[in-house]
Amino acid sequence: MRTDFVITLVTALVAIAPASAAQAPNVVKYHATIDTVKYVFGVADPVARLKSGEILDTNTLDCFGNALKKPGDTLSMVKGDNPLTGPFYVEGAEPGDTLAVRILDLQVDGDTGVGALSPGFGALNETNYTPMVHPALPEKVWFYPINHADNTATFRALDSDFTVNIPLHPFFGCIGVAPANGEARSSIVPAEFGGNMDAPEASVGNTLYLPVNVKGALFYIGDGHAAMGDGEVAGTAIEVPLHARVQLSVIKGKTIRWPRFENDQAIMAVGAYRPLDDCVRIAFTELVAWMQADYGLSDMDAYELLSEVARIHLDEMVDPNYVVVASIEKKYLPARKH
Amino acid sequence: MRTDFVITLVTALVAIAPASAAQAPNVVKYHATIDTVKYVFGVADPVARLKSGEILDTNTLDCFGNALKKPGDTLSMVKGDNPLTGPFYVEGAEPGDTLAVRILDLQVDGDTGVGALSPGFGALNETNYTPMVHPALPEKVWFYPINHADNTATFRALDSDFTVNIPLHPFFGCIGVAPANGEARSSIVPAEFGGNMDAPEASVGNTLYLPVNVKGALFYIGDGHAAMGDGEVAGTAIEVPLHARVQLSVIKGKTIRWPRFENDQAIMAVGAYRPLDDCVRIAFTELVAWMQADYGLSDMDAYELLSEVARIHLDEMVDPNYVVVASIEKKYLPARKH
Amino acid sequence: MRTDFVITLVTALVAIAPASAAQAPNVVKYHATIDTVKYVFGVADPVARLKSGEILDTNTLDCFGNALKKPGDTLSMVKGDNPLTGPFYVEGAEPGDTLAVRILDLQVDGDTGVGALSPGFGALNETNYTPMVHPALPEKVWFYPINHADNTATFRALDSDFTVNIPLHPFFGCIGVAPANGEARSSIVPAEFGGNMDAPEASVGNTLYLPVNVKGALFYIGDGHAAMGDGEVAGTAIEVPLHARVQLSVIKGKTIRWPRFENDQAIMAVGAYRPLDDCVRIAFTELVAWMQADYGLSDMDAYELLSEVARIHLDEMVDPNYVVVASIEKKYLPARKH
Amino acid sequence: MRTDFVITLVTALVAIAPASAAQAPNVVKYHATIDTVKYVFGVADPVARLKSGEILDTNTLDCFGNALKKPGDTLSMVKGDNPLTGPFYVEGAEPGDTLAVRILDLQVDGDTGVGALSPGFGALNETNYTPMVHPALPEKVWFYPINHADNTATFRALDSDFTVNIPLHPFFGCIGVAPANGEARSSIVPAEFGGNMDAPEASVGNTLYLPVNVKGALFYIGDGHAAMGDGEVAGTAIEVPLHARVQLSVIKGKTIRWPRFENDQAIMAVGAYRPLDDCVRIAFTELVAWMQADYGLSDMDAYELLSEVARIHLDEMVDPNYVVVASIEKKYLPARKH
Repeated sequence: MRTDFVITLVTALVAIAPASAAQAPNVVKYHATIDTVKYVFGVADPVARLKSGEILDTNTLDCFGNALKKPGDTLSMVKGDNPLTGPFYVEGAEPGDTLAVRILDLQVDGDTGVGALSPGFGALNETNYTPMVHPALPEKVWFYPINHADNTATFRALDSDFTVNIPLHPFFGCIGVAPANGEARSSIVPAEFGGNMDAPEASVGNTLYLPVNVKGALFYIGDGHAAMGDGEVAGTAIEVPLHARVQLSVIKGKTIRWPRFENDQAIMAVGAYRPLDDCVRIAFTELVAWMQADYGLSDMDAYELLSEVARIHLDEMVDPNYVVVASIEKKYLPARKH
Repeated sequence: MRTDFVITLVTALVAIAPASAAQAPNVVKYHATIDTVKYVFGVADPVARLKSGEILDTNTLDCFGNALKKPGDTLSMVKGDNPLTGPFYVEGAEPGDTLAVRILDLQVDGDTGVGALSPGFGALNETNYTPMVHPALPEKVWFYPINHADNTATFRALDSDFTVNIPLHPFFGCIGVAPANGEARSSIVPAEFGGNMDAPEASVGNTLYLPVNVKGALFYIGDGHAAMGDGEVAGTAIEVPLHARVQLSVIKGKTIRWPRFENDQAIMAVGAYRPLDDCVRIAFTELVAWMQADYGLSDMDAYELLSEVARIHLDEMVDPNYVVVASIEKKYLPARKH
Repeated sequence: MRTDFVITLVTALVAIAPASAAQAPNVVKYHATIDTVKYVFGVADPVARLKSGEILDTNTLDCFGNALKKPGDTLSMVKGDNPLTGPFYVEGAEPGDTLAVRILDLQVDGDTGVGALSPGFGALNETNYTPMVHPALPEKVWFYPINHADNTATFRALDSDFTVNIPLHPFFGCIGVAPANGEARSSIVPAEFGGNMDAPEASVGNTLYLPVNVKGALFYIGDGHAAMGDGEVAGTAIEVPLHARVQLSVIKGKTIRWPRFENDQAIMAVGAYRPLDDCVRIAFTELVAWMQADYGLSDMDAYELLSEVARIHLDEMVDPNYVVVASIEKKYLPARKH
Repeated sequence: MRTDFVITLVTALVAIAPASAAQAPNVVKYHATIDTVKYVFGVADPVARLKSGEILDTNTLDCFGNALKKPGDTLSMVKGDNPLTGPFYVEGAEPGDTLAVRILDLQVDGDTGVGALSPGFGALNETNYTPMVHPALPEKVWFYPINHADNTATFRALDSDFTVNIPLHPFFGCIGVAPANGEARSSIVPAEFGGNMDAPEASVGNTLYLPVNVKGALFYIGDGHAAMGDGEVAGTAIEVPLHARVQLSVIKGKTIRWPRFENDQAIMAVGAYRPLDDCVRIAFTELVAWMQADYGLSDMDAYELLSEVARIHLDEMVDPNYVVVASIEKKYLPARKH
């Protein structure tokens, strides 16, 4: 068991999660199965409840519900895409608050990852929302043996005998809360509530901030990725079940409109919409606002500074909304005011 | 004078530029001034001629023609945007060939960089091509002292007393050739011919490949940047004059449609259009084609592999076309066939 | 009361709604108030039930819940946007069926229409999903006296003394059913389930086809418009309460993916997404598929014929998804096969 | 020959073209052939010169250079796309002026029209600028017999025996001038200078206004269409040679940024870019500015009025830039001030 997380607590959370080595946060364990997963980010009966600051220890199924196991298995065997573990009710969370999710540990929970070309899904082929008169591409499935010893997955070409190892970087493809305004959204959608962001930022060492829209926040996770290229262009990552430990904390009275990530090095704002141009606009206007509110820069100074040092990560361009993360390293920022 | 470039020649160029330490390529020197610059990528009388494999040693003015020098100077003093040094005629280059541009050395040619908020330009405000009924933002200029000793530029906030140093990463904002089909394009435009790509990839250690569209290729450079954030969101980088050394080589009979970059670690394909969604599609379909033609992967295997290990760099979202670079590290590729 | 609708029944509905002048369909009456409206297209307790082929006689509040009545009233008085009348349960409707909605009569239910510039909403200003660093436009409200005698609304300029009359063309801005996959969507969103399409096609003389996603279909209407320009560019139409009569019929076993309209003259396919480019692709691929399935043209012949005679109507570019309707007049089509 | 044009002169032109029935404008005749056409909007030697107010009587080849004549002919027989007749030098035209083009007469100059599915071109298939991994669609050609007696063209399905007549509405697909800033653009591109707008508005009864960018304006026409659907979705209209009469007049000192159309009923602003969202923004901000400058409405009143009565025409979504025309009928406007 990892105990080092207490030491690396990001500064912003100290006040709300005043854990010490002597007084580790309580751990709530929950085991998800294909019979308890959900396929919608929305209001549903919680599978467990946590106090603010407690740690959730749980597992997620892969995006296919663990249905594809060996060559010859087909997408028709999949019951539903992106089964979600949850929802988890966080006590004290109310609309207008922010939920902070510290990702403490992620382990690939199996020996095989899966990539699939699914008709109507992908950035370089016709899809449901960029349809064309071309026939859909044929279904194809790649299996990736996971090597836990050297922390890699192996790509095996289907049409030649080439193989290559890819380092693991496990993260949640799906992580989010119940949406605002009474909406419920499919687990393939990313938006203001988080969701299927396919963000490699949702990995160990980072804290994700999500807007709380309903009482208890109703937190969900799923769609584990062992590794993924920028854009997730063919429609899937190396899809795996995960074992996870995350700490959930409520920041009372702090209101945000879009998901944010943070670690010791950087602040990061998410834009999740279509087209990518608007993702970029969302992420950067959020970042400008963050730099104004918490770091005291004027909007025009923040805009100019970002023009010189910002980073943009295009997370995915295949889901019903696309996802971009805009960030700035803290070393370029004034001292934090709040 | 640098002599180390011979050692770091990328493999692909060995055949066409078989230089050795004993037999360094010839160097052609040219000095550009505000009276000799051009503002269009097109057919014009060459300012100098090089043989394939020779090295060009020259300078570029900043994007404002070096007109902004001190606080109080305004954009009305600028004669034209993005003055270009060139064109340079490369002997033997003919339509259907590729021009390889190895960037050997780039030095900031001055002590001050400039950033400017120019009305109608920027990713987060109304522009000529995303116009709105909002009034344009007011003009603002930031001056960045260049510290040659520690290789940084200093950002000074206009509205507070915050300053911070930014490491230099000099590159050409403009680099390209005369376009195809008899077109001539303004130096603010990036497209198939290269142009105002604002690509940090156009820096020392990388080779840029450009399609040759007219006899002699007619190569241009300009718009030096000392450093730039992803997206160049406020519309400018830290704009500087540069002193440059680049090696120009013709690859006979090799035809490409879009610019490409390469170094020892990676192959990189450029997509330059609008919206960003289409930039991504252009860059990735080019990369898939490159992986098929030179590395022998099938298109579907290439597509899947990119979904797991590709990188996307959003260079800029402010020019008349936007620019994205999609890349894959060579360590993930089979041995090169050609 | 209108009785002529029996005579103008579109051919496609004859089989499923075999009414005759002697045997008019049953009429179900329902009166909506601010206390019974909904703000989400989703699963909720039905306010009334109809048999397939019956006529619904009901009313809708305007998009502001009838809260803006006179100069000086402000958007802060509005409890929620786009209050919906419904849902109505249609007996026999099951997932995989199609709901046909014949719009028989629409009357403006009041003497004043309202147009409003709402901060963060509109096609030519910064919005929630195309945010910019510009400050939001100030709120403004225009009141349009309705002249029932000559069937016009009067525009009165706020900043000069100009007035002009605009002919009425009443239609539902919101019309739709509960979404698929367990989703629930805000009443400001248009998508596959219909919703806030802001389609002038949703008017008397047209039939709307909607996919049935849940048992009973759960039909909603609201957001009446007295008249609207293409694109609804400033964010609102001439917003009015309506009195409405629509006939709801279930087409068993007929499955569609996107809403469709039809009248005696034309078939029309809806594309509702972002950006407009993808709306156009959705609407036209649906239209090609419709022409293949029901009229026997090959896909390539349908594609070419549309290139010569299709019509595109840009309904709105202001909601979270945009809406385009692509159509072809029946006079250009072969005889219908089904 | 038509003589009625003098009577229907739009009001705006009376001052600059004070013709009377007794004093008809001079006519300049020019005959274009495949040997004199151009493929670029740019600076070239004029083929003829006109005084402001004179009438040009000339012809255009079809977009294939009249190369496709009968079933079995293929696109490989085409020398260049969109051959242009011109340029015509208009005396007195200088940068900053506007060129008014009144379209007086257009006749289909042949007995056959052509439609073609050209690989990499079209709104519903992968293209050069929206590339995908799908193989390109196969080339296909449709021939349309022109019936001059009843003014129709006949569509003949390739894959079934269906035929249908389509009414003729002849217009120029290409109409424009030399671009600004020293640019030269291919004849397949529409932009600020007009060009390949594929606008059915470029037909008899309408006046087109173009910005003058170089001395003499250098006016070009070509790419005649006998009829076309909105969007030109498969990539071509019914392509025909035309015989044309247009009157060219210089409006001194009047500066516009984008093309505009006008007739007795309406004012129309062109937006030509990508994606469609930005075309709409360009066209509407131009229209708002026009309503302010010439009709005295405030910008916010103009915005609101357009939201209720504007029309949007999606001309094409297949060229390197897309084209939208936004318009308002004059009956909704105050009296013109200028």
